Amino acid sequence: MAKDITPRSTDFAKWYTDLVNRSTLADYSPVRGCMVIRPHGYALWENMQAALDRMFKETGHENAYFPIFIPKSFLAKEAEHVEGFAKECAVVTHTRLKAAEVDGKATVIPDPESRLEEELIVRPTSETIIYSMFSKWVKSYRDLPILLNQWANVVRWEMRTRMFLRTTEFLWQEGHTAHATHEEAEAEALQMLEIYRRFAEDYLAVPVLTGRKTPREKFAGALETYCIEALMQDGKALQAGTTHDLGQNFSKAFEVKYQTSEGSWEYAWNTSWGVSTRLIGALVMSHSDDDGLVLPPRVAPVQIAIVPLWRNDEQKDKTLGAARELAAKLGASGVRVKVDDRENVNPGFKYADWELKGVPYRLELGPRDLEKNSVMAVSRIDRKKTPLAIDDAPEALVKMLEEFQAQLFTNALERRDASIRDVETWDEFQEEIEKGGFLRARFCEEDDVEEMIQEETKATVRVIPFDTTEDPGPCIRSGRDARRRVIFARSY
Amino acid sequence: MAKDITPRSTDFAKWYTDLVNRSTLADYSPVRGCMVIRPHGYALWENMQAALDRMFKETGHENAYFPIFIPKSFLAKEAEHVEGFAKECAVVTHTRLKAAEVDGKATVIPDPESRLEEELIVRPTSETIIYSMFSKWVKSYRDLPILLNQWANVVRWEMRTRMFLRTTEFLWQEGHTAHATHEEAEAEALQMLEIYRRFAEDYLAVPVLTGRKTPREKFAGALETYCIEALMQDGKALQAGTTHDLGQNFSKAFEVKYQTSEGSWEYAWNTSWGVSTRLIGALVMSHSDDDGLVLPPRVAPVQIAIVPLWRNDEQKDKTLGAARELAAKLGASGVRVKVDDRENVNPGFKYADWELKGVPYRLELGPRDLEKNSVMAVSRIDRKKTPLAIDDAPEALVKMLEEFQAQLFTNALERRDASIRDVETWDEFQEEIEKGGFLRARFCEEDDVEEMIQEETKATVRVIPFDTTEDPGPCIRSGRDARRRVIFARSY
Repeated sequence: MAKDITPRSTDFAKWYTDLVNRSTLADYSPVRGCMVIRPHGYALWENMQAALDRMFKETGHENAYFPIFIPKSFLAKEAEHVEGFAKECAVVTHTRLKAAEVDGKATVIPDPESRLEEELIVRPTSETIIYSMFSKWVKSYRDLPILLNQWANVVRWEMRTRMFLRTTEFLWQEGHTAHATHEEAEAEALQMLEIYRRFAEDYLAVPVLTGRKTPREKFAGALETYCIEALMQDGKALQAGTTHDLGQNFSKAFEVKYQTSEGSWEYAWNTSWGVSTRLIGALVMSHSDDDGLVLPPRVAPVQIAIVPLWRNDEQKDKTLGAARELAAKLGASGVRVKVDDRENVNPGFKYADWELKGVPYRLELGPRDLEKNSVMAVSRIDRKKTPLAIDDAPEALVKMLEEFQAQLFTNALERRDASIRDVETWDEFQEEIEKGGFLRARFCEEDDVEEMIQEETKATVRVIPFDTTEDPGPCIRSGRDARRRVIFARSY
Repeated sequence: MAKDITPRSTDFAKWYTDLVNRSTLADYSPVRGCMVIRPHGYALWENMQAALDRMFKETGHENAYFPIFIPKSFLAKEAEHVEGFAKECAVVTHTRLKAAEVDGKATVIPDPESRLEEELIVRPTSETIIYSMFSKWVKSYRDLPILLNQWANVVRWEMRTRMFLRTTEFLWQEGHTAHATHEEAEAEALQMLEIYRRFAEDYLAVPVLTGRKTPREKFAGALETYCIEALMQDGKALQAGTTHDLGQNFSKAFEVKYQTSEGSWEYAWNTSWGVSTRLIGALVMSHSDDDGLVLPPRVAPVQIAIVPLWRNDEQKDKTLGAARELAAKLGASGVRVKVDDRENVNPGFKYADWELKGVPYRLELGPRDLEKNSVMAVSRIDRKKTPLAIDDAPEALVKMLEEFQAQLFTNALERRDASIRDVETWDEFQEEIEKGGFLRARFCEEDDVEEMIQEETKATVRVIPFDTTEDPGPCIRSGRDARRRVIFARSY
């Protein structure tokens, strides 16, 4: 167990924040609710961005950048939307500071003469500002579809924050598209959900359920919200990504109209979709353990750390030289590799450090290994040791990294699947929800009933899975007719 | 001459904004002073980012992310710094909107109950927030150096804005480092300036003068500001990047102290350095012409556009098929290529469109060319036509793109060098400054004299070049003793 990390079994929430801090993914900042993403965390985010960005571009999307400020009146144009975001936003009111004396002390205050006529909101999401631009760019059916994505920071004033999972400022991508028909928009929202699923499962090794949200849980202003939903090690669910079929709500609010090939005028159909640095939280809580992070090779900033061992300068020359040579070969095979040549710490410290940082494999390379032309690979999952001939190591390790990736996913999938249980009665529901995991239960899909369930058990409908089948019977809580089973859980 | 673009000779400023808009690099937004970077402009920025990011990482820098909000008191901790930025900043005062009636109309207003105790400033630059974190991370000489970079948006409330050159919000990178000695910090500031110079000249094909700023023009809070300075086609200078030796000003304000190997405590030495989307403006004003953008191949989103020609379906099958085949081969050679298969516009429109967008080479591929197994390459610089055998085209074009890049640089360099003139008298200075370009003149390096020169001629000292030599004589304006010549110009 790593120093200063609370074990999961003692306090899962404390384990998480200890781990995020100690592994140098992130740190608290002096600004309430905002975090600092440190180089280890940011390198992880860059790898995630690169994979997602490639998938977005392969499906015809282009990146663009829109202003961080949204005029107050824009936010108010879509009624549900302002309702959803007005209660937690940063409001800019002045554009200048001036020297002043307050309570006898010299300070600076907002200059009253710089008061803005209309306040600006720091974007909590960019539908309003982006669709106001679409109205300028879209004239004819020939201008459609517009398929844009933006990598940006957004701000939502959160009262209770937790690093990566819920912070006042966070980094994300937000896709925004405009289409000629509802069918196209719907297909886009589903296509992007499938990209999110592939990304979560193939890159982050996090299995997800896919489906739609209930009206109560959908995005403020959407017709329909689709989601990928993951399960953390403590049995709580985490919404890992959403895509929205916005219908014509925003195009009507912002006059995004196009002339059809027949000459009539129609409102465009919009979608938006986003994932954020929250995914880093999902990753940590899916795979990591009491010793530190466990990172999937496909996104790990360092995939292999080589620790050369020595007791004297002669040994050091040899093992460090061999380590560097091996690192060069691994690098040429596309592996992200580091040689740990630190002088002031011992090998035990180095091993623990790379375990803390979540590096999939460390290679131990001592004088004895070198005599046998061998190197010892140690897996981060179970510390299993695999001796490798140095010459074969690059090829073998490329394969072992793939197996590591697959193993992480299998472990998470087994845990997730084992947690999915059918429940038939309200008593059973109340008992089972305490144990965590996903509960499959019949539900009447009424807002007030969902609210009641949440108040009584802290659980909500996480997702109405796409693969749910007709299974009529009484609603788990209201006893009213229910068509099908949905997935309940407590969530982050 | 492209439709709707004012010629440079008529009005250079209007030409610039027409071009930025029409070429779809950017658009005005409904938020005062903020712009929208459209896909063509953003793709250019992504290519610039990729090259810079690689150079930063090669020199040991890591990316991180710090909060967008800075507590008012932080900004005020360094006296020169707050003086420099307080007059143009976005101040967040509230965290919630609430419904209200104003002048009998329903609206939303900042909720008075959500007034922040301490206002937050949207970062104009991040020295203060970043060095406050360094104070937490730096304890010992072993923790140094810290070499960080951040890609971010920043906000400076500008009264007169111009797309890319001066906007309220802009995108940039800001490097922030901490070192044990002043020598190391100075070497870092100079190393990063050299990276900026290489980037400007080798990627953007924009020749730059390198040197230091006068005290009057340096960064608010720096000991010394180094810069790269470019010359636009209208004879005005543009500051394209700066690096700052911050000395111990910020480490003293934020208590960034480390214990030396001997056990004593010292303040760390900081540097910061940044370039921004302003570079896109520099690029446009360096190379483009009355027909549109001219982009250097190394950063151009599209390097080659292939326009297949046809009059009937049979011809279309052939030329479009050949175009796609050639595009695949060019793509495999690492060329960013597009096949223009648009149906609803004629070839003349397509040619003009790719010229407007600044694509270095377009390839015209008609049925006759195909019969001769040939394709016609047309250069964006001078419309020179080069027939190429299709089989040889990929190899030839890779070379031609390199030559294009070199040619752009040579053209800009010749123009820049021709504009540098020595002036010896104040009369001569006043006459020559009207013609634009860089004037080399002896200067006493006094703030008040520089201010006087600016008031009288709108010119400032752009740079004290590194390669200036001792050349004593009377100051061009004050007549006092001057050690050397510096570079004056009017600037953006």
